[in-house]
Amino acid sequence: MRLYINDVAVRDGFQIERDFVPTDVKIGLVNQLSRTGLCKIEVASFVSPKLVPNMRDAGEVLAGIDRLPGVHYVALVPNIRGAQNAASAPRRPDEVNVVISASETHNRANINRTHEQSLAEFPMLIKVCREAGMTVTVSLSTTFGCPFEGKVPESRVMDFVAKFHALGFDGISLADTTGMADPLQVETLTRRVLEAHPGKGDDYYTLHFHNTRGMGLANVVAGIRAGVRSFDGSIGGLGGCPFAPGATGNICTEDMVHMLEQMGYNTGVDLDKLIGAARHIPAIVGHDVPGQVMKAGKSSELHAPPALPD
Amino acid sequence: MRLYINDVAVRDGFQIERDFVPTDVKIGLVNQLSRTGLCKIEVASFVSPKLVPNMRDAGEVLAGIDRLPGVHYVALVPNIRGAQNAASAPRRPDEVNVVISASETHNRANINRTHEQSLAEFPMLIKVCREAGMTVTVSLSTTFGCPFEGKVPESRVMDFVAKFHALGFDGISLADTTGMADPLQVETLTRRVLEAHPGKGDDYYTLHFHNTRGMGLANVVAGIRAGVRSFDGSIGGLGGCPFAPGATGNICTEDMVHMLEQMGYNTGVDLDKLIGAARHIPAIVGHDVPGQVMKAGKSSELHAPPALPD
Repeated sequence: MRLYINDVAVRDGFQIERDFVPTDVKIGLVNQLSRTGLCKIEVASFVSPKLVPNMRDAGEVLAGIDRLPGVHYVALVPNIRGAQNAASAPRRPDEVNVVISASETHNRANINRTHEQSLAEFPMLIKVCREAGMTVTVSLSTTFGCPFEGKVPESRVMDFVAKFHALGFDGISLADTTGMADPLQVETLTRRVLEAHPGKGDDYYTLHFHNTRGMGLANVVAGIRAGVRSFDGSIGGLGGCPFAPGATGNICTEDMVHMLEQMGYNTGVDLDKLIGAARHIPAIVGHDVPGQVMKAGKSSELHAPPALPD
Repeated sequence: MRLYINDVAVRDGFQIERDFVPTDVKIGLVNQLSRTGLCKIEVASFVSPKLVPNMRDAGEVLAGIDRLPGVHYVALVPNIRGAQNAASAPRRPDEVNVVISASETHNRANINRTHEQSLAEFPMLIKVCREAGMTVTVSLSTTFGCPFEGKVPESRVMDFVAKFHALGFDGISLADTTGMADPLQVETLTRRVLEAHPGKGDDYYTLHFHNTRGMGLANVVAGIRAGVRSFDGSIGGLGGCPFAPGATGNICTEDMVHMLEQMGYNTGVDLDKLIGAARHIPAIVGHDVPGQVMKAGKSSELHAPPALPD
């Protein structure tokens, strides 16, 4: 079975790094990732440089990267202004991904908008993207739980998904923004979404998990069981949790690909190249990262047995 | 659904720590774990003190701990001599767990015995344990793969399980000793084992996973799907991988319990007490440990939203 793997480290990982990651380093990493067989790479976000200083070079990153055919280069935006900035960039992203949180408290904390304000912008935002030749997708943050409000009613998620379909988005991402989802919840809710609103194409729905409480890869398996074929990860497991210093963030792309390929799925990704890229990440960010396979090696890598006593 | 959770940190975690963990610290941790609702606690192993210096105080740990009704206190042994030492300890363990590896190379590396030599000892070993009033279980190491030989044929695992049943062991643990198993493999092989050789009681079969490549909790979910109800973990995620400095070892008990309780399973464990105990672990071992929930908090713990700009 074909699965679609996207990497969001350059956006979701670097955005929380304290030190600015130089533009040429970001470009170098994107270029490395481009050659691994990933479907999409989220390379930037058009957000306030005051609020997210590490994303202030979005335009330069988009202008500087080599674009390989078959790879979709994505920029995240929080609102129509971000979409306009993406559209007027010297080199536009292939795809704009706009975020809205299922939890209103989180939506206000994250992008300073009510649900109503966010939704009101979407028709024009979609128009701006389409006219600029960019596909436009939407991420529903806190789909599986909100760190401020707690549980999010499934009915609210269903309502949002229905609205997204009516608006005509090119894809929908269901995001577990702070790693609260468990596998049973993922399978149940995702199956309900897909049954009520079938995707337009295999990669119409994407699941975006964080490994904050260790459940990330279990949730990927649950998502596949529910019928999803497209998954976000972050190389090296880059990313973090704003509420918990030391906690991990996004699920690790190469750990996910390692598991999926071992299970017999076709991710299209060259795992060795991906692990090779991951091993540069600690030097880029100046600290250890949560990726496991980059440390332990693939399951298929054998070791010499120790010398035995006589 | 009732699940049975065991902690093996005091044995499988501490055994690879470079520095000796003082006996009273081990005893203190076991006593703390005893009060969390765990079913079994693996508290020691009767092995060569030269090879595993951190286990040299097995007898003192067993003599010093408070034993709570309903909790099974377990010691691991590699051979009949270990079982005899357990039987002649001033205070015996409730249960002896003997190990044998599905891979012969690993069996020789781990306990310096061929399969034949290990199996030949088992009838007498079981007799020694029974006569001393201890239950006796067996762990099949490298069930899901060997770091030296690679894949282990399923037929070999089936043969071992058949032998274990014929020998009359009180329980069988299938162990993914170096974190090579993936969820598909776990579900397939475990289901095959349980169908061919049904367990005698809900907790007859135990799955023992390592999170070396991030697949640990996904494998727990797969094991439940296959019908297993008993799982090992290690508090704080203590443990490691001898071949990969920096890689994680056993799956983290409190992360597992957090996931399972959130999924609606009844583990019988007081998660808050378990997390409380886990938060002492870094001070005990003098380094950070891989547990996630101890850093991020439970999914159900809410945070105050940030102050919003006007």
